[in-house]
Amino acid sequence: MVKTLRVPEATVTRLSVYSRYLERLDRNGVITVSSGEIAEGVGVSPAQVRKDLAYFGEFGTRGVGYNVKDLMRYTLKILGLDRHWNLILVGAGNLGYALCTYKGFDDRGFTIVGVFDDDLTKIGKKINELDVMPLEEIPRVIKENNVRIGIIAVPPGGAQGIADIMVANDIQAIMNFSTIALNVPDYVEVRNVDLSVKLEILTFNLGFRAAQNL
Amino acid sequence: MVKTLRVPEATVTRLSVYSRYLERLDRNGVITVSSGEIAEGVGVSPAQVRKDLAYFGEFGTRGVGYNVKDLMRYTLKILGLDRHWNLILVGAGNLGYALCTYKGFDDRGFTIVGVFDDDLTKIGKKINELDVMPLEEIPRVIKENNVRIGIIAVPPGGAQGIADIMVANDIQAIMNFSTIALNVPDYVEVRNVDLSVKLEILTFNLGFRAAQNL
Repeated sequence: MVKTLRVPEATVTRLSVYSRYLERLDRNGVITVSSGEIAEGVGVSPAQVRKDLAYFGEFGTRGVGYNVKDLMRYTLKILGLDRHWNLILVGAGNLGYALCTYKGFDDRGFTIVGVFDDDLTKIGKKINELDVMPLEEIPRVIKENNVRIGIIAVPPGGAQGIADIMVANDIQAIMNFSTIALNVPDYVEVRNVDLSVKLEILTFNLGFRAAQNL
Repeated sequence: MVKTLRVPEATVTRLSVYSRYLERLDRNGVITVSSGEIAEGVGVSPAQVRKDLAYFGEFGTRGVGYNVKDLMRYTLKILGLDRHWNLILVGAGNLGYALCTYKGFDDRGFTIVGVFDDDLTKIGKKINELDVMPLEEIPRVIKENNVRIGIIAVPPGGAQGIADIMVANDIQAIMNFSTIALNVPDYVEVRNVDLSVKLEILTFNLGFRAAQNL
């Protein structure tokens, strides 16, 4: 077990949001920012911002605030985004297409270097600049591009098999869009992405409001 | 301001995960379940499960556990999933296609009843059973289908305009896949979906592990 992390996932998620906000401030030429301004900009409380940043050491000067560029660089470094990450993607269906063309990945230093599918009718087709390749090519592409992260965007039935191939080829982190839970060794990090969870937060809030007659 | 909710979003997210797990148990004919088993099944601590459920009242019998069917129905009701929700989707690009064909929505009672785009080359094309319609049809489709939730899957430049149309036509909750922050009245709930955030949680963990030489 390597679950020695004590930083809550919600904190890491907010850090990711802060870093985007800081990038925007930096692009707009802003030099310093207070925790109150960050809080206002991203929609959390100032105390939450200070608490989140405190996990990672001391920042800012009382009464002056944070230096935008320094804090931006530091948050990116904490998130592992001071380097470039190559990814592979398995599953060249609608979701795979959308992920390959998703601008948000590039912006944060993620590049999909290989797309794979076991559907013969898809192999050889082009998505952006990438040819869809057969699964047999996965080991070579991982090795040549030093890939540590894989994205699974296949139907539920095929997901575990793909995860097994990834694990056997040194993938250490998996983003799983299939709706099943994957069995992988403890040292492999998995994050499941279920797009309907966000909808359920919305319906929870709508229902809660209706119940209060607001 | 209607921000009277005291239930943390992380709790609602876990509730959504619990309800899926309970559905699976129910399908498999399981009658009762303990908080420890739920915890094990979804990967959180038993104390967390009990704390999350306690927000919504008393459940379970000490030493016996929870009745699976009752708790499943209750969690679905809390999430607003004891009813059916019609959605509209604006943006018929790759991501729009993927969302229209995403099985996870249907499974939880969400139906996309209209797809819209302002690109003339896309209007009239079929995604699943739906014709892509021009933006002018949005008010009619919302009214006829009693739609309260809209999904925005357009490029950043067009997102605010779409949000304005939605708000003007009684949409109360927006799932925003564009990478910009939307300006909407306080009574409209917005959830931003940034697909790279989950990747950043992975790179955070990979970086953290590397730093600890694990």
